[in-house]
Amino acid sequence: MSEMYAIRRTRLREQFNAAGNTAALVSRPANVSYLAGPAPHGSVLLLGRTEDVLVCADPPEGRCDETLRPHVLPGPGDPAVAAADLAQGQYADSLAVEEHHLTVARHREIRSVAPRLRIADLGGAVEQQRIVKDEEEISCLRIGAEIADQALGELLESILVGRTERHLALELERRLVDHGADGPAFATSVATGPHAGRRAHRPTDRRVEEGDFLSVCLGAAYRGYRCEIGRTFVIGTSPADWQIELYDLVFAAQRAGRESLAPGAAYRDVDRAARQVLDSAGYGTGLPPLTGHGVGLEIDEDPQLAPSAMGKLDACVPVTVEPGVHLPGRGGVRIDDTLVVRPEADGGPELLTITTKELLAL
Amino acid sequence: MSEMYAIRRTRLREQFNAAGNTAALVSRPANVSYLAGPAPHGSVLLLGRTEDVLVCADPPEGRCDETLRPHVLPGPGDPAVAAADLAQGQYADSLAVEEHHLTVARHREIRSVAPRLRIADLGGAVEQQRIVKDEEEISCLRIGAEIADQALGELLESILVGRTERHLALELERRLVDHGADGPAFATSVATGPHAGRRAHRPTDRRVEEGDFLSVCLGAAYRGYRCEIGRTFVIGTSPADWQIELYDLVFAAQRAGRESLAPGAAYRDVDRAARQVLDSAGYGTGLPPLTGHGVGLEIDEDPQLAPSAMGKLDACVPVTVEPGVHLPGRGGVRIDDTLVVRPEADGGPELLTITTKELLAL
Repeated sequence: MSEMYAIRRTRLREQFNAAGNTAALVSRPANVSYLAGPAPHGSVLLLGRTEDVLVCADPPEGRCDETLRPHVLPGPGDPAVAAADLAQGQYADSLAVEEHHLTVARHREIRSVAPRLRIADLGGAVEQQRIVKDEEEISCLRIGAEIADQALGELLESILVGRTERHLALELERRLVDHGADGPAFATSVATGPHAGRRAHRPTDRRVEEGDFLSVCLGAAYRGYRCEIGRTFVIGTSPADWQIELYDLVFAAQRAGRESLAPGAAYRDVDRAARQVLDSAGYGTGLPPLTGHGVGLEIDEDPQLAPSAMGKLDACVPVTVEPGVHLPGRGGVRIDDTLVVRPEADGGPELLTITTKELLAL
Repeated sequence: MSEMYAIRRTRLREQFNAAGNTAALVSRPANVSYLAGPAPHGSVLLLGRTEDVLVCADPPEGRCDETLRPHVLPGPGDPAVAAADLAQGQYADSLAVEEHHLTVARHREIRSVAPRLRIADLGGAVEQQRIVKDEEEISCLRIGAEIADQALGELLESILVGRTERHLALELERRLVDHGADGPAFATSVATGPHAGRRAHRPTDRRVEEGDFLSVCLGAAYRGYRCEIGRTFVIGTSPADWQIELYDLVFAAQRAGRESLAPGAAYRDVDRAARQVLDSAGYGTGLPPLTGHGVGLEIDEDPQLAPSAMGKLDACVPVTVEPGVHLPGRGGVRIDDTLVVRPEADGGPELLTITTKELLAL
């Protein structure tokens, strides 16, 4: 494992060196984890001129990269500011920082504690490196997806009518942990009746009723990696015609998105494949700004599958495909999978979340 | 309720006007909630020259202040940048922003979209205003504390030996919601045996054993307000002598901290009252950097009760008092209450978390 972190840091170092910087300060938590392993809350990583240092408020606990020198702050203080001070002590002449993560106030403090350093922008270099996953990372996502499938499968076997969104969400989270998750990958969403189909709906005290659409979105965090699955069901014996039609439409959109996943496909084309199915049925306005996104150490990371996104998919990029339609006052449908982009020769996109997408009446 | 938000905004406006700014952009989520009520995720608030606007990616849903004009972004985009554009459209000449919250990259975008505005720093003006609570806010904290007491009380009646930290934590969180919490105020901490007494310990798969210390820290979020309670127990019929001694010591430190809470008391003196009890028993090194902190819309807000903190308590400031000692390899004790500072004439500090602090053997 340590070797892997060192390789990632070397790749990053080549990049910021080529841009003329001798040192870099990584402060965004998921980026620190990517390059150093699980580190204490608030830690930052200095890729220094003479050595790499993990600067933290509390001593690290074993699981992070042991080849890094830990520097534990003696008292209260900002690890990023302490790291800049160390960089200056190493006679670095320039330090690249994550301007999309550091606040204006911290940035100013860094400049004032290390006045001899030229402060540059590291930009999204680590986020870019994180997009394509190695097989170890994908295997964590695969296990997380299995756990989410199990938790969801068990819920479907229980009685749902009369239970609140809030309780169903908690029950799902408990089952995630039962099956070995570190915890939920994000706040579990359970949406009933008129709430169904809303992206990131926060569970309320509304109870499941006969005839409802029920949409559920959950994911497991496993060794830090986060996946996502979303399904929509109907409560009762026979779905209404409008429910079947809407479900079939969203299903067709989601399939179109999934089928367009391939190395070399433009992000916006994947989005368009799903979006145009909904659009041509008259649901074009009011759609969420994206139909999918990358997953990994964060639940929502690059790439964004959206109309204005620039870039193309590579192999080994895990993404969600999650179109949905919500009709105010009536409810709606969302269907959400996590898949890994794979070349045609390897069988095409690998579906991680395998719970059925037939319309189940529960 | 709306009136209250308007009064808070007026107070803030007087302050930034006095500092020479015609408009302010509030972006830190808890600050936005404080001034506008519960707003969609990622919303920002513009206190403009001609009107106040809530800029959001999704339409607000009823519960936030209806006297504010909502401005929903038509597509993807950064609400803070859109708000700066609006401020310029209102012919504001200067805009105070939260430099301790905005990233360097967002700040630069704001400057580029609104080049005619002078961009100044609002500093922690909203955080300062949030320190002293009104009785409505305190009543939310009081209800949250009752909920946490109930959840903890029920756990104590159940069988603990053999259950994992992770499961106990989930069970507590389910009970918080059962009793009416919006959710947990922060990640519930359950620490057994050698983990006991560690601040913010993340639950593991370790199971409760006979003879363990068990420390638990939890809180309820109620209408957005977050409280905290922490207790330490012994598992089994008879605590060991070292356990009783350590418990008594931490209890004495915590009591000293509680008893020093009064309007006018310096933050550092409250910290010292608790800290010196532990210090004089030889546990001075390795103590956490603070012995308490403010609570409210965030679980950890101003003031900080720490050796180098500057400032004095006011009446109606809710704080935690939470000293602890952790002995590596053996475990330890933490005791944590949420209290509201009240003058002597009103009976002194009001204890919100009333679960017993006797050493219970479970």
